Amino acid sequence: MREAFRGELAAIGNSLVEMTQLVGFAMSRATTALLEADLDLAESVIEHDRMIDKRRDEMDEKIVDLLARQQPVVATDLRVLVTSLRMSDDLERMGDLALHVAKIAQMRHPRNAIPTELISTILEMNYVAQMIVTRAGEVIASRNVAAALELDRSDDEMDILHRKVFTILLDPSWPHDVESAIDITLLSRYYERFADHAVSVARRVVFLATGTWPDPQSDLTGNHAVLDDL
Amino acid sequence: MREAFRGELAAIGNSLVEMTQLVGFAMSRATTALLEADLDLAESVIEHDRMIDKRRDEMDEKIVDLLARQQPVVATDLRVLVTSLRMSDDLERMGDLALHVAKIAQMRHPRNAIPTELISTILEMNYVAQMIVTRAGEVIASRNVAAALELDRSDDEMDILHRKVFTILLDPSWPHDVESAIDITLLSRYYERFADHAVSVARRVVFLATGTWPDPQSDLTGNHAVLDDL
Repeated sequence: MREAFRGELAAIGNSLVEMTQLVGFAMSRATTALLEADLDLAESVIEHDRMIDKRRDEMDEKIVDLLARQQPVVATDLRVLVTSLRMSDDLERMGDLALHVAKIAQMRHPRNAIPTELISTILEMNYVAQMIVTRAGEVIASRNVAAALELDRSDDEMDILHRKVFTILLDPSWPHDVESAIDITLLSRYYERFADHAVSVARRVVFLATGTWPDPQSDLTGNHAVLDDL
Repeated sequence: MREAFRGELAAIGNSLVEMTQLVGFAMSRATTALLEADLDLAESVIEHDRMIDKRRDEMDEKIVDLLARQQPVVATDLRVLVTSLRMSDDLERMGDLALHVAKIAQMRHPRNAIPTELISTILEMNYVAQMIVTRAGEVIASRNVAAALELDRSDDEMDILHRKVFTILLDPSWPHDVESAIDITLLSRYYERFADHAVSVARRVVFLATGTWPDPQSDLTGNHAVLDDL
């Protein structure tokens, strides 16, 4: 029984790792759609988001089923299950954020939503997003606390890029219109929230492994005072 | 045993209703702080958000404890617990959104972040937010499917206001700077997401009661294609 339970927990862990891959891929494709004003690709990202939602729903069912059949009573085991539910929610939400990026590409097509001077920053944001989500997957698989804490620091790079975007937008020489400023404000927030959720996943691993949250100042959503430096 | 379990489920329901009141109050105070450039009030909202986070964490612990002691095996009971976890997450996130509104008030103090021509729209957004969160509390308490579906429709009012904000911002006669446009874009998104999460809570009640989601087109986050009409 115990052995079977371990096996099922491992399967849940594997599903979560797969979800990190799906949402990383979604954000990568959304970024390409955005920068190349590629309508087909944007619509494909939007369509694929249902698959990610489905994965999260399947996770709910798996956990209900596991609770019903195995009846775990050890608090640690139950906490792993509760945490897995929370992680699948973080990952599903990351999929939504990729979808939102794709929607801006779709909405502005055939125009390109990103002015030339911001292309490199958006590319960097995607690069950091990919790095963070890949590491989140590794942290789920390895339960490595040191790697999880490392990831918490990587998020600082995203915050720097997020601030850089606002510096560019608020420069008096900014030559583009309000619509463009709105698009870029929202896009920057989507990448930043994507990274926040990946960090939240890593923080949950730390909590499971150590019983304490990595930083008592932060809340559980990995919400690093987004706007403090806006 | 079964009786005790029912009693504990009811207590969890009551805690969720209380969370709706806390987050409704937080958003109401954040709106006042924003419109009156009231720094003390903004800081009080920011400080109080920890209490809401704590409520969510206590909910996790309550549910782990209940699972360990009562060992429910009926899938319906387990689904209620999983759904309660999801609802507490929605509500905690609504608290974060009130905090984000308060942070814009804090950041722009002593200036007022909201230009005169947008005050009435922000007031209306808060009015709709209050109505939706109050109804979400009633729906949790009553498990009334008709009221939950009604709430799904109320969200349309928020979407109309959200679109109205962008119409005002994108009007060629918009006289304010890019910073102001950024603040208002984010604020409008915060109110709109607040309503989305309240709708998500109501939709979960419908799912528990009927076994189907109110609208097969929408995803579980109550995410009504925020940007389609931006």
